[in-house]
Formats: sequence, C-alpha cells, structure tokens
Amino acid sequence: MRAVDLIRKKRDGGELTNGEFAHLIRGYTAGEIPDYQVSAFLMAVYYRGMTPTEMAAMTEEMRHSGVVMDLTSIGARKVDKHSTGGVGDKTSLVLAPAVAAAGVAVPMISGRGLGHTGGTLDKLESIPGFNVRLGPERFKEMLSGIGVSLIGQTADLVPADRKLYALRDVTATVESYPLIAASIMSKKLAEGIDGLVLDVKTGNGAFMRSQEDAERLARAMVGIGNSCGKKVVALITDMNQPLGEYVGNSLEVIECLEVLKGRGPADLVSLCEELSAHCLLLGEAAGNIEEAREVYRNIVASGKALEKFREIIRCQDGDPSVVEDYRRLPTARHWAALNSPESGFIREIDTQKAGIAMCVLGAGREKVDSVIDPAVGMQVHKKTGDSVTRGEPLCTLFYNDEDRYQEARRLLLESYSFSADRPMRPALIKKVIQ
Amino acid sequence: MRAVDLIRKKRDGGELTNGEFAHLIRGYTAGEIPDYQVSAFLMAVYYRGMTPTEMAAMTEEMRHSGVVMDLTSIGARKVDKHSTGGVGDKTSLVLAPAVAAAGVAVPMISGRGLGHTGGTLDKLESIPGFNVRLGPERFKEMLSGIGVSLIGQTADLVPADRKLYALRDVTATVESYPLIAASIMSKKLAEGIDGLVLDVKTGNGAFMRSQEDAERLARAMVGIGNSCGKKVVALITDMNQPLGEYVGNSLEVIECLEVLKGRGPADLVSLCEELSAHCLLLGEAAGNIEEAREVYRNIVASGKALEKFREIIRCQDGDPSVVEDYRRLPTARHWAALNSPESGFIREIDTQKAGIAMCVLGAGREKVDSVIDPAVGMQVHKKTGDSVTRGEPLCTLFYNDEDRYQEARRLLLESYSFSADRPMRPALIKKVIQ
Repeated sequence: MRAVDLIRKKRDGGELTNGEFAHLIRGYTAGEIPDYQVSAFLMAVYYRGMTPTEMAAMTEEMRHSGVVMDLTSIGARKVDKHSTGGVGDKTSLVLAPAVAAAGVAVPMISGRGLGHTGGTLDKLESIPGFNVRLGPERFKEMLSGIGVSLIGQTADLVPADRKLYALRDVTATVESYPLIAASIMSKKLAEGIDGLVLDVKTGNGAFMRSQEDAERLARAMVGIGNSCGKKVVALITDMNQPLGEYVGNSLEVIECLEVLKGRGPADLVSLCEELSAHCLLLGEAAGNIEEAREVYRNIVASGKALEKFREIIRCQDGDPSVVEDYRRLPTARHWAALNSPESGFIREIDTQKAGIAMCVLGAGREKVDSVIDPAVGMQVHKKTGDSVTRGEPLCTLFYNDEDRYQEARRLLLESYSFSADRPMRPALIKKVIQ
Repeated sequence: MRAVDLIRKKRDGGELTNGEFAHLIRGYTAGEIPDYQVSAFLMAVYYRGMTPTEMAAMTEEMRHSGVVMDLTSIGARKVDKHSTGGVGDKTSLVLAPAVAAAGVAVPMISGRGLGHTGGTLDKLESIPGFNVRLGPERFKEMLSGIGVSLIGQTADLVPADRKLYALRDVTATVESYPLIAASIMSKKLAEGIDGLVLDVKTGNGAFMRSQEDAERLARAMVGIGNSCGKKVVALITDMNQPLGEYVGNSLEVIECLEVLKGRGPADLVSLCEELSAHCLLLGEAAGNIEEAREVYRNIVASGKALEKFREIIRCQDGDPSVVEDYRRLPTARHWAALNSPESGFIREIDTQKAGIAMCVLGAGREKVDSVIDPAVGMQVHKKTGDSVTRGEPLCTLFYNDEDRYQEARRLLLESYSFSADRPMRPALIKKVIQ
C-alpha cells in the first residue's frame, strides 16, 4: 500500500477502507508517512469530504494512536461534555461538579483557548495553585475518590491528533467538518467514557457560523460515537453573543461560582442545566430529561454541586477559599465602562470580534505561546435585543495595560451594532441531535 | 505574507497575485516554505485550477528559480520543440538536425523516459559514446558552431520545477493541467528560445487521453508562452497507437536515420515534416507553412539533415559511423513474432499497455532508477484499421531476457483488439493551436 495511491483515491472521490486508514494514520504517527503526503490528503478531504464509515475508521485509528484510558475500575458511569468553543463559554465549570455530585463520573480532558475562543484550562488556572497537569494515575484516583477531575491533554493520549492538528493549522485544512469531527471524537473516545454530550456552537462567534454547518458537524460526531458503541447527544446552541455576562478567566470562574450558588445570568443557568441534564440522562442518573433537570436543580440548590467544586479545587492543589472570597482570584487594576454611542436596540454583537478584543486585552491567546492575563476581561451589560440609551454602558472592561485597553475598546465598539426597532433575541438552544 | 494564507486563498477559489507566486515559489526553492504547505497548495490547485494570469506568474517564477540561458550571442533564431510524450515518439531526432540544417538554431533540452513513454535522452544514449551531459558552455559552443545541441536538464536550470515535480509525484498532484503547463513552459522558457512548437499528444497512450484535455493543456501553454513574449504553436496529435513502426531506443534511432535518408513510415515522416515546418516558420526560415514544408523536404532530400545528425553525434562524443552501419548500435540477441490470434481488422491498440510491455522488456523505466536495455523493443506490423489474418505477425519483439519477453508478449497480446468491420484510422494531426 502506497500513501500516494490513497491520496489519489480520496482525490478522485473514492471511499477509503479501514485498512487504508490504518496504514495512513499509523504510518503518519510513526513518522513513516511524511507531512507532505498527509497535507495533500487532508486538502483532498477538504474538497471530497468523508463518508460516515470513513470518519469512524479515521477516528478509531487516531484514538488508538496512543494510550486509551481504561476507566473500567471506576464503578460509576462516565460521561463527558465537549463544546466546540465560543466566547464566555464556561459551562464545564458548573456541569462537571454538578453532574459528579449527582453520582455520574466526569473524566474531563479539556483544551486551552486559541484565537477568539476561551479554554477551560485557562479558566481553571486562574484559581491560585490549580494544577491541570495531573498524570493518568492521579486522574483515576480523583475519579474514584470524588467522581470528577478536570485536566489537560496528556502527551500519550491521541498523538495522531496532535500531529494532524498542527499540520492542518499551517495548511489551511482546519475548516473541514469530517476532520474536526474525527479530531474531537478521537480525543473524547480515548478518555474511556460511556457517554458524551456535545455542545455544538453556531453563530458569529462560533467556528460553525451557520446552523446547517453546525448540524452537519453534530451529526458526524454523533454518528462516529454511535459506531464506536457510545451514547452521544449533541445540542446545537447559540453563539451570536457571549454566553453569560462575563468574559475573562477569573471573571468566568466567579460567574460559575455564582451559578453553583443558585444565582447567575439566565442564559448561562439555562444552558448549564440543559447540558448537565443530558449528561445525567446518559449517565443513567435519571429516567427522562425532565427528571434529569430536576436532579440538576436539586443538586445545585442543596449546595452539593458547589461543595464538589471545592473538592475539585482542593484535589487539584488549588486554593478552595476562592469559593467564598473572590478577592483571592486575580483582579485587574483598572476598569472602565464602554458607553453606547447610540440610542435604540442592540441589533447584533459581532462575537468573534468581541472575542478578539478579549484576546487583545490579554484574556486569550493570539498564538499558542501567548501569555494569558487571568485578571482581565469584560462584563457585558447589553445583549442582543436589549434597549439602550446613548451614554449608557454597553459593557465594562477590566484591564491592566492602557494600550491593550484602547485597542480592545475600539474593537468592542465596532462589534456592537444598533437598530431603531427591537430585533429578535437569538434562541439559546436550537436543536438536540441524538 | 504567510504561506497558509496563500493556500487558503487558492483553496477558496481566489486568484493569487504575481507577488504571491513570487513568495511561494522563491520561498519553496530556498527551502523556507516546507513541502507540506506546498503539497496542500498543489492539491488546492488540482481542484481549483489557475487563471491564465496565475499560470504565467507561476511559470515566470519557476523559470527564474535558477539560471536562465542567455543565447543572445547566437545569431540565428532559436526554436525548440517539446512533446508531451508517447510510445514510439521520436520526432526530435529528425526535427532537430533538419531544422538546424535549414539555418534555425535548435537548443533542445530533453528528458528521459518514465512509465510507458520513451525519452529522447535514452534514445540518443543508445548511440555508443553519445554524451547528453554537456555543460552550458559546450551547449552554447555547439549552437554557435553547428546550430543544434541535444542535452539533458542541468542542475542549475529551473530547480523549482525539479522540487515541485518530485513533490507532485508523491502527492497525487501530477494530473493538473495548469501545473503540467507551468512545469513544461518554465523549462522551455529557461532555454532562452524565441519560439516553441508543442506536440500535445492525445489518445490511449498519451497523458491527456481526451482531445478536450489535450486542447486545454495546449491552450494553457500557448497562453503562457505568449504572455512571456514568445511565439508558441501547439499541434494536437494522435497517440492511439505507437508512432512509426519501431519502439525501443536503438530501434528508434535507426528509424529516424531512415527518415533522414528519405524513407521511413508515412505517419512518422508526416509528423516530422509538420512539426519541423512549424519550427521553420517560427524561426522565420519560411514565409508560410507550405513554403516551410518545402524547405524541410528539400533539406532532407539534399542529405543535409542527415549530415547535420552526423555532426551532432560527432560533437557529442558519439560514434557517427552508426549512420551508415546500424550494427554499431546495440542489438538484441533474440527476436520473435507475435502472431495474430484472430482474423479481421485491428480495432484498437491499447497504447499505454503496449508502452508498459516495452518497459517490461527493458526499453523503458518503471522507476526513475530502472536500468534501460537500449537494444530491446518491437517492430509494429499491424496498426489500427489494418486487416490481419490469424497467424500473421502483429509485431516482432526484440529481446534479451526470456522472462521479460514472456511478460511483454502477454501484455502486447492484451493490448490488441480486433473487429470484423474495418474501423476508422485515427487522424494523425487533429488540430493546430496558436
């Protein structure tokens, strides 16, 4: 079998067999098939796509390119949640402790923020001392002990994905839904989970701008999961404006603590409840979705979810006193309101641009090696459909550097658009695909 | 400028600027842009194509990636011919001496055979001592002295094409007509010629199977040549059967000597005349095509073309006595007729398969490092449209190795198909594009 023949087959619209994917992915991971052949293959996939069978085959090969976690020793059912990323997207910090507190184990392996989107690991690391680099043994211990652990990707998990992702990034082959689906699913399936809830974002701050694209990606991932014998459900949710009120790492930790205390903004509360309920359903902690929502609400109201978050922080070397005293989290030296230049209604928020503004401020990474400032970010006062009077604050910026603030402010101002008539508010949960 | 952005631009159907091609080709040649980005770019070109402006820009950048020959010191006009390759395609060995003998300089830089097609250099090297590796100085001296030289690609000429071609070969991006056009034209334009005649083969033994594809390629090359200020004409010619009667290196040299002596098979004679006439026209040795044909016929009839071939052999360290004594060329130890299994007419010859049979026999290269046996080959007795009686020879094989002979014989037998009714003979010259 020659790599060039596999490239040609895909180039001409053929369907690769499981054996052909095995040759390609194993050869690439082992360094026997060079980057330049794989990048040509990826570009052919960009144009030709992949069948469900091909996606499953590629995912399985990637998944087994390294260590696949064996969590069979954990008695509880194991469920994870994955989001395709957005601005202010912080549900993991609520969902993981809440679901675990209800008896379903959550072995969560998350990523860092890149570009305009934030990452769970960066948020957690704003908690002083919090360690996301636990080895597999401590990860398993935590799962046995408290039913949840939140860590970063380890070097021996899905090495094929790391190589492929780095290659796609520099060859303009990131934006291919079969490749995105295989990348996400290979990592999640390597966690040794029983079920997975996917939060596929759509809108002007999401990777998948159109709902059609988001649904296509969601269906691909659900299909891959099912052909690997896992229960997978995908929610298509809105990313046409930041989720919740806060964007920025320590600010989002605070907002999640608020939700765990039974407060917080309605959209974030609602999405945390819905995603958690689906996790509980897959984890068999409830018989139907309404019952699952009830379980979630009770676990939050009882304070057990908050207590679980405290346990997580403690087990991962963090300072649990942040739960009661937000001043122990990094805070910005300056803040300033951005006032509305117009009266009327918020017609739209260019969420990607708002996310880039946060990046400029230091809350996110422009490049993989950018350094994050955990203290900076913003509070959003006005969202799509809200009425506003000229001079009223649209948002408040928390910052440490004047130049970055000026640039972020300029971008944020550009990201808001206004209208005289009240526009529709975008629906938060658009579809459930299972 | 980042390579990934240029890949994305082409991926999405954009038109790259001259400056963008400069960045890409110069960066690649200098080793600053890696193979894996260029292969993704090439695959995007495979799907998206290139505009005439892009093809011209890419060709110009490739052409100037190394030394561009300066032949301004040669007084005569300089014209070359290039064929896209086929089986028994040997016109260069007639055309080069004939055109040069008529006063138009022919600076011909040729290639070797690969796959089922033969190469001019391999044919020339079957002449004992013939040296195709002259440096640029000896090449120029010959052009000044006798008006013609036939050499191989030198290392400093169009290095970008060598790198790109090697990459295309292993990434399934060979079959893209804009890339083929840029590859051919960059090499030809680097020769410092005034005019170029292209022989674009079409049919079941050609790279471009359909006439439509051949015309598309021809038009692309003519367009590139014109935008570089060169006179270019392309002939679309038949490759649905071997050209002439002989295939194999020393056998083809003999056949060309026959044509230069005023004999030889009609199709080969006719194509040599037509291609040479176009060269003479571009070289301003005749006022119109009919006059140019006349010049060619006279130069052959006078023996001056043959004498020029003798001079070429002498100047390139070969044994000129082969012209009078064919036994000085390598000859095969064995020969055997392949008799027809049927009576009727030759419906079709699968020319690619026949070419592969010649490869198997040792006349061509399966891989770039295969060793050629200059003595072996075949004489074709029956061509498309000819009547044949069962048991009558279709062709004669000249061979040195029994196993190779058996395999070649089997393939050749498969390559012939028969019919009860006389089929159309394919037209030799299908179109002239200028």
